[in-house]
Amino acid sequence: MTNRVVEEPEKKPMITRLQKLRTSAAKERFDALLVSHPENRRYLSGFTGSSGWLLVSKQKAILATDFRYVEQAKGESPDFEIVQTKGELHDWLPGLISDSGWNRLGFEANCISYDSHHKLTEAIETKHVHLELIPTTGLVEELRAIKEPGELDSITRAVALADAALEQAKAIIRPGITEKEAAWEIEKFLRQEGSEGIAFEVIVASGPNSALPHARPAERTIQSGEPVLIDMGARFNGYCSDLSRTLFFGQTDNTLRRIYDIVLRAQTAAIEGVEAGMDAAQADRLARRTIEQAGYGDAFGHGLGHGVGLAVHESPRLGFNSSDSLADGMVFTIEPGIYLVGQGGIRIEDMVVLENGKARVLTKAKKDLSF
Amino acid sequence: MTNRVVEEPEKKPMITRLQKLRTSAAKERFDALLVSHPENRRYLSGFTGSSGWLLVSKQKAILATDFRYVEQAKGESPDFEIVQTKGELHDWLPGLISDSGWNRLGFEANCISYDSHHKLTEAIETKHVHLELIPTTGLVEELRAIKEPGELDSITRAVALADAALEQAKAIIRPGITEKEAAWEIEKFLRQEGSEGIAFEVIVASGPNSALPHARPAERTIQSGEPVLIDMGARFNGYCSDLSRTLFFGQTDNTLRRIYDIVLRAQTAAIEGVEAGMDAAQADRLARRTIEQAGYGDAFGHGLGHGVGLAVHESPRLGFNSSDSLADGMVFTIEPGIYLVGQGGIRIEDMVVLENGKARVLTKAKKDLSF
Repeated sequence: MTNRVVEEPEKKPMITRLQKLRTSAAKERFDALLVSHPENRRYLSGFTGSSGWLLVSKQKAILATDFRYVEQAKGESPDFEIVQTKGELHDWLPGLISDSGWNRLGFEANCISYDSHHKLTEAIETKHVHLELIPTTGLVEELRAIKEPGELDSITRAVALADAALEQAKAIIRPGITEKEAAWEIEKFLRQEGSEGIAFEVIVASGPNSALPHARPAERTIQSGEPVLIDMGARFNGYCSDLSRTLFFGQTDNTLRRIYDIVLRAQTAAIEGVEAGMDAAQADRLARRTIEQAGYGDAFGHGLGHGVGLAVHESPRLGFNSSDSLADGMVFTIEPGIYLVGQGGIRIEDMVVLENGKARVLTKAKKDLSF
Repeated sequence: MTNRVVEEPEKKPMITRLQKLRTSAAKERFDALLVSHPENRRYLSGFTGSSGWLLVSKQKAILATDFRYVEQAKGESPDFEIVQTKGELHDWLPGLISDSGWNRLGFEANCISYDSHHKLTEAIETKHVHLELIPTTGLVEELRAIKEPGELDSITRAVALADAALEQAKAIIRPGITEKEAAWEIEKFLRQEGSEGIAFEVIVASGPNSALPHARPAERTIQSGEPVLIDMGARFNGYCSDLSRTLFFGQTDNTLRRIYDIVLRAQTAAIEGVEAGMDAAQADRLARRTIEQAGYGDAFGHGLGHGVGLAVHESPRLGFNSSDSLADGMVFTIEPGIYLVGQGGIRIEDMVVLENGKARVLTKAKKDLSF
């Protein structure tokens, strides 16, 4: 573990990130924040282990982890005081807090179970520690939504890996291969080319299966003339990419070809129209309007896109009921789709970054229909 | 998705499992149980989708999932009434409950976030639904700990895949190959031979890295004379396997050879001594005593083993502070280890099933030291 290669340690940004968190936390009513969300933990500390907690106050930055990860934590998180824990959260936290002078501890309410919170509350009472637990949401996620140049570099590398895998997929996929086989070939390519695992399970959905937005690759053999929806992502330096294309073999069904054009027009409208300062719901409208006008409004059953970073789904969320706002530095997908049950579905997905108020497309994969 | 191949639908056991849950729930103070834990959901319903909730009362068995999975749920869970949900738990649950006549709803306290519970409580109040939420833990996990014959068949298949992958690893690993390359070869073999993904990230840790119980494969090149600790598992029909072996290339260091013998003796003592009716802490002692007597007590920093099934870590937990009891039908690992920081570590792990009061070893992989 100690000699594990972390390609870019990104140690300096951690200080800036902690400062930003402290600035936004100054408006909150807690003295310190307990960070338990894995990507938030990695973002703030650089620590890549699978278990650990951060405690961040105005003065202090503590990374608490168990014996398995202490050495790794020291190497990866030089800006943090490393504390070795034993047992569960409620076993060690009250003792660690008791002489800190903190009276109010913020915690990530969507990342702690009811049970953990309950046990922690009990332990605080039993040990007579004067500490109030304050639920919070989205504090670190908000910071993560705006990418730094180093993060954008890593994302760009992950995007390039996915682009290359799509070219490889075009070379491999042919009538007679099953969806599962194709998905596995794509995954192998990604990983052999340097992707750290994959961002999510590769989707290859052919024919009617392409109408199911979350189809898992099946033993189904891909047939000539069918749409083949591919959705996959790489991971580089921890950062994800996300790419969808719908391809056709041989002669294309006329309806699906028409639908492909509608989805592509909707996507282009969104890419060209999206702006910093815009509500994410308004961005969703840019594409949805085109699809509705073509009469397929009901067949676009998901949102326009989502932020991508250390997590493949993160802030902002672009959907008709989103309350997020778009800002320069955000990286997200633009992925409208039309799904006709029993027939097939089309989705075209690019990743973009907002720069100088407008979207710059990161994805380079072509959008030609056929192989 | 609709034509996804599920090798053994296991539809009949669901009725029995529901009956068992109802029997154990009769002692609890709720009218219905909300099941949110993914493996518990799959175990009770057969549903393999990634999102959904079960509601089980004396009379009813409901599977609630969103539009993406409704068709799949109908196919996979014929014993359940399928309800299509929209939005988050607190959006749809109060409405669904309101005319059920249920006054007390059990929920899985370690599988619902503080935030979800809080929002649900608020929604129940706002909508004037008379419903008390009762935290529960381990109800379904307890049932899952005792394996049915069909489950044991699937586990045995997963164990055989891991055994075969170890033979493959012996053929591939040689001085000069990196840990990462070796791990990837093992994963490729597993998946190409029919493993559904892998049970967990393959561990290949060489030389001093083998002393880190949770080492991730590094770019480190494996050297002659070093221990190579391999830990990996396959998945078949949803069921996991888990196998560790420590191998040596060329001449073996004398200390490590001696330690290997100690670990093997400790493991043999545990396999031979473990019995149905025994406390899991007592089982841990069987191996720990041997290691302590040899003077390495401090170097065995983890528990003896853990249950394996739909999850790679599940009940029972075999450790010095476990309160579990062992029973016929349980499947678990026996994996003592000794880790000397800076030098290397040895772990030998088999899977066993308790039958007629004694352990039957499922793992067939040899325990010879060298390649």
